[in-house]
This record gives sequence, structure tokens and C-alpha cells, in this order.
Amino acid sequence: MNNADMEALARVVMGRIFIPLEASGRHVHVTEAQARALFGHGLTPKRPLSQPGQFLANERVTVMGPKGKLDNVAVLGPERKEGQLELSLTDGRILGITPPIRPSGNVADSPGCILSGPQGQVALPRGVIAAQRHIHMTPADAAQMNVTDKQVVKLQVYTARPLIFEDVLVRVSPDFATFAHLDYDEANACGFTQGDLGRIVT
Amino acid sequence: MNNADMEALARVVMGRIFIPLEASGRHVHVTEAQARALFGHGLTPKRPLSQPGQFLANERVTVMGPKGKLDNVAVLGPERKEGQLELSLTDGRILGITPPIRPSGNVADSPGCILSGPQGQVALPRGVIAAQRHIHMTPADAAQMNVTDKQVVKLQVYTARPLIFEDVLVRVSPDFATFAHLDYDEANACGFTQGDLGRIVT
Repeated sequence: MNNADMEALARVVMGRIFIPLEASGRHVHVTEAQARALFGHGLTPKRPLSQPGQFLANERVTVMGPKGKLDNVAVLGPERKEGQLELSLTDGRILGITPPIRPSGNVADSPGCILSGPQGQVALPRGVIAAQRHIHMTPADAAQMNVTDKQVVKLQVYTARPLIFEDVLVRVSPDFATFAHLDYDEANACGFTQGDLGRIVT
Repeated sequence: MNNADMEALARVVMGRIFIPLEASGRHVHVTEAQARALFGHGLTPKRPLSQPGQFLANERVTVMGPKGKLDNVAVLGPERKEGQLELSLTDGRILGITPPIRPSGNVADSPGCILSGPQGQVALPRGVIAAQRHIHMTPADAAQMNVTDKQVVKLQVYTARPLIFEDVLVRVSPDFATFAHLDYDEANACGFTQGDLGRIVT
């Protein structure tokens, strides 16, 4: 084999064992109506995210809670059917909100907050959560790694401060790319840096 | 056995298996000369900490780094032979300092910062670290749990977001009480709340 073939093979072997890690900062999802109220128009893409079709918007908001506010918070597109604020427990202390640990989209009985944009404010009656750590996975990778949608696994991370996360939710969809998502508390707790890898362990 | 006996027995059994967890917030250690420069006098105790002889001081400082500052930072006593600032990686981002992950007291080649108190400022030429997660342990508990001073172990934590910390440093001394110390990134990553327990696993 030549070097290019070796590298391609190595990448395939690595992909069958390891899962790339990503740190998700605090961010907001909004509906179309909320985007118009906040910005006067729909979301506009600044750059694509690792998950196909998802993007970081040019638009930003200030989030206000009972004890404080967070400026310049990222908004992710495209618009959704319900607004949602995903933050870390550290962020929650700043706002004075204790977010429940939830899979994205599971917002029943969660606390709300105020979003403020250049064109107006929007009250989210609910939707403030700390995203449960999770792995987005393609069906092919899920089959390869022998896991199924909604399975809860342990994820060993090979980082500066190595640890094994329990209670990691696997989400499988043909719309996904395979990445494990940590929030910034989790990323800092394991000393994550760009390019670090994890592995499902039993 | 009566209830009091049962409870005493349960406590002994628990203590042979489980280690109480504590979250350490950002804090500063100073020398006697630094305390005088910052406050005009030595440190005065506000309340005792879990480690025998250690106390939270009434005195507080502002810490300044190249990108930002942290107000109202706790100072722990008694005074030490060298100043040290222990913070989380999240705190480091605010200051614009990347602290190395180190056992307390291991400050060679670490970055510095400025401390500001009501009576003056002090430049720490070095000593800004993120404390390596660690377990303080009495010799009796270390013998019971079959570990020795400076051993690195895995610590499984029974918390809201359970995980297994690797690279946890055991420190054994007759001057210690047995507690595992996490920083706030680690505490939030595992969903720690007061009273949570951990266990050394292999």
C-alpha cells in the first residue's frame, strides 16, 4: 500500500472504534415567529455545524434570567417548532435558573427565560435545559458499534483529564454525523481539546 | 441493636466503601507577607474547612489576568510558604490564563496573576493552577481502601450525572480528613450536590 492508502485505511479503522468529541457552547433554538420578533427576519447562516443541515446563525441574543444575563448567545438554525435554551449548569448559576438535564426537545415542565434581540424580546415560557450528554450517530456507525437509538452507554474519553462518562444517550438517524456532544462543564472536566476522541465501553 | 447502634454501624460500613465528595471553588493561598500587603494584617478565620486546621478567611481578593478579572475570590488559611491561585478551566477563560492541571503546591513554570486587596496589590509571578482532582485520605482509610500516598485511582461518583473520573490523585496524611475534591467544572459535569458519595474502582 502507498501512503494515501495507508492513511485511508487508518481512518476507516479509527472510525470503527473511536468517536470524535465536540464541545457545545450555550445556544438557543427559536421558532420562525420568534426569529422575526427578535431580529425582524428569519435566521441567516454564518457557518455550518457538524450535524448536516444545522448552522450557526449570524444572529445573536441576550438571555435574561432572575439573577443575571448572558450576552451574545449563539442561535442555531434552522428554526424549530419550539424555542429552547441549552446551557451548562455553570451558565444556569449566572442566570439564576437550575436547568434540568434533558435530551434536546424534551422541555416539559422546564423553566423559561427572556430572549432579547435587536428588534424585540421574546419570553420562552419553558425550554431551558442542560443537554444530556449524547452521541449523534449514523445508522452505519450504530450497527458497527453495536448500539441502537436511545440506548444509554458509557463513553471513555481520551483527553487531558481522562474519564468515563456514564448516562450518555445514543441518538441514531440518517440525518446525523457521528459526534459525541459535551457541554462546556463536561469538556473542561475532561480537559477536552479539538480533535480528541472517545470510545463506547461496557 | 437499637436504632442508634444501627445508624452507627451503617456509618462505619459506608465509610469503608464510600468517600464523601466536595466541590472546591476557586481560591487563593497567600504568604504572611502577601496577606499583610493585601489586607494590612494576617488572615482571620471565618469558618473551618473539612481539612483539619484549614479555614476560609474573612478576607477576599480580586484576581486579575490579561483578559479579565474575578471579584470576591475566597482566600484560604493558614498562610503558606508560596502564593497560589487554584481555579477551574472555566475561570481561566475569564482571566485569559490557561492553568496547568497540577497537584496543589506543584507550581513550577505555571503562569502568574495579580491579586488585589483593600490595602494593596500583589503580583504572583507563578502559582496559577487547576488543581488535579484528588482524594485527601487518613492513613486508616487508605489502609482500609488499599491505596497509598500519590497513587492515581479511578473514582466512580454516584451523582445526578454519574461518571468515573480517571487520574484521581490520592494524598494520605494523618493531617487529612477523607474527602474527594472536585473543581466546579468537574462538580457540574457530574451533577454533584452536597452529600454525594464516590467510590474507588479498579
